[in-house]
Amino acid sequence: MSSNKQASIGIFDSGIGGLTVAKAVIDALPNENIIYFGDTARVPYGIKSEETIREYALEITDFLLSKGVKMILIACNTVSASAKNDALEKAGNIPVLDVITSGTKTALAHKSNSHIGVIGTLATVNSKAYEKSIHAITPETKVTQQACPLLVPLAEEGWIDNDIATKTLGNYLSVFEHVDIDSLILGCTHYPLFKDVIPGVLNSGSVEIIDSAESIAETAKNTLKELGLLNENGGSFSCFVTDRPQRFQQLAERFLGRKVSDVVITHL
Amino acid sequence: MSSNKQASIGIFDSGIGGLTVAKAVIDALPNENIIYFGDTARVPYGIKSEETIREYALEITDFLLSKGVKMILIACNTVSASAKNDALEKAGNIPVLDVITSGTKTALAHKSNSHIGVIGTLATVNSKAYEKSIHAITPETKVTQQACPLLVPLAEEGWIDNDIATKTLGNYLSVFEHVDIDSLILGCTHYPLFKDVIPGVLNSGSVEIIDSAESIAETAKNTLKELGLLNENGGSFSCFVTDRPQRFQQLAERFLGRKVSDVVITHL
Repeated sequence: MSSNKQASIGIFDSGIGGLTVAKAVIDALPNENIIYFGDTARVPYGIKSEETIREYALEITDFLLSKGVKMILIACNTVSASAKNDALEKAGNIPVLDVITSGTKTALAHKSNSHIGVIGTLATVNSKAYEKSIHAITPETKVTQQACPLLVPLAEEGWIDNDIATKTLGNYLSVFEHVDIDSLILGCTHYPLFKDVIPGVLNSGSVEIIDSAESIAETAKNTLKELGLLNENGGSFSCFVTDRPQRFQQLAERFLGRKVSDVVITHL
Repeated sequence: MSSNKQASIGIFDSGIGGLTVAKAVIDALPNENIIYFGDTARVPYGIKSEETIREYALEITDFLLSKGVKMILIACNTVSASAKNDALEKAGNIPVLDVITSGTKTALAHKSNSHIGVIGTLATVNSKAYEKSIHAITPETKVTQQACPLLVPLAEEGWIDNDIATKTLGNYLSVFEHVDIDSLILGCTHYPLFKDVIPGVLNSGSVEIIDSAESIAETAKNTLKELGLLNENGGSFSCFVTDRPQRFQQLAERFLGRKVSDVVITHL
């Protein structure tokens, strides 16, 4: 186990989406050293089998452990849904946090939580991971899920608030029209990009929008504090990707709003 | 070299899209034995580097050669754009056809070809593969390209002719409004699903829509005829995929309109 304060926080995702988590972690913990791993050669995970996703998650966990990380954040909802326990077991006593557990806790901390909405990729919705995670804590909470497969390609096309994005969101979110949800979990790391558009489409100002990137960053901060592992002298950010480091670098700089110079291609 | 008439035609694609090619080949050559390879674990190729795509294409070509195929059809525009020559070289004297070369020939056979439109994935458009292929034959032909990254996810969502699909096509095809194209090449194997919607969006009845699945099937038939390799006693269809054989089987049955019983998972 690496219990060195200077050790890095490892964050991984199937691709670039987890950069919303990296951004939230940098904002919450600016003095931590961060290693981001994006599996850009094998993205997207959402259409792959559980078996394949577990295999990939274990490979990446191994890689991060070899870098001596003090904590691992699973920034990918698909991995959180399918392979969280595998990563936990592999990591031994290094804490492993995931976006689903963190997002669930934030949603349940909300003043009222009789009915929670969840949007995500097909894989996340089919796994019912949020539903299971919520019901493990409050079995009486109603959960309504909706898969939104077009939102990731829309976000990557940069179509966030044009009429096509709004109509697509309208189609997907119409399922929540006649159910009275208290909060809506954005169960995919790309979805925070639509955070400003969703309330207008939902046509309900009272629904709390839960951004699991912010949730996991908050949980990471609290966990490091409890373990006495907060770093006060770091602040580095380095990235490892399995394909197309230059494209990743461009997107990372756009996502993070800062220069990203340290992107290394690696093969697992 | 396998010059046995009974030998199979090998068709490969990054995933399920190439089934539009398989369908066109089955329609044109119902007595051929066909092996389809879909790299469903590593789909989509369109966002990967040329180097990675070439590596994958060589692995799949090797696999098909090990099955003793008499001909290989590259049913993936991304592979056709990036790795056709690698596959050709690996295959020795087994003919290798690809959707880009076939689509180009059909477009140029059209009565007028002073200006050709091409739509495709980002990777296909960035590679300028159709432009190069057209200019190698008629350097004076104008080519206007447009990337349409949302069409594949729309097709997989089953949103073919709703208002979101129509508006998305309208956005993408508006580039052809003020250029007088004679034909439009559907440069992605998913796009034939929008074939009936596109003329209305283009608002021009005189543009010939070129479906490269039909083009490559026609070329395959002519090539086998010339080589004396047409099969009269086959008709089998078997599939190899790298992930999720059951989902593939369901989609294949929908694409082909027939029962598909022979789907085997394989690891390269």
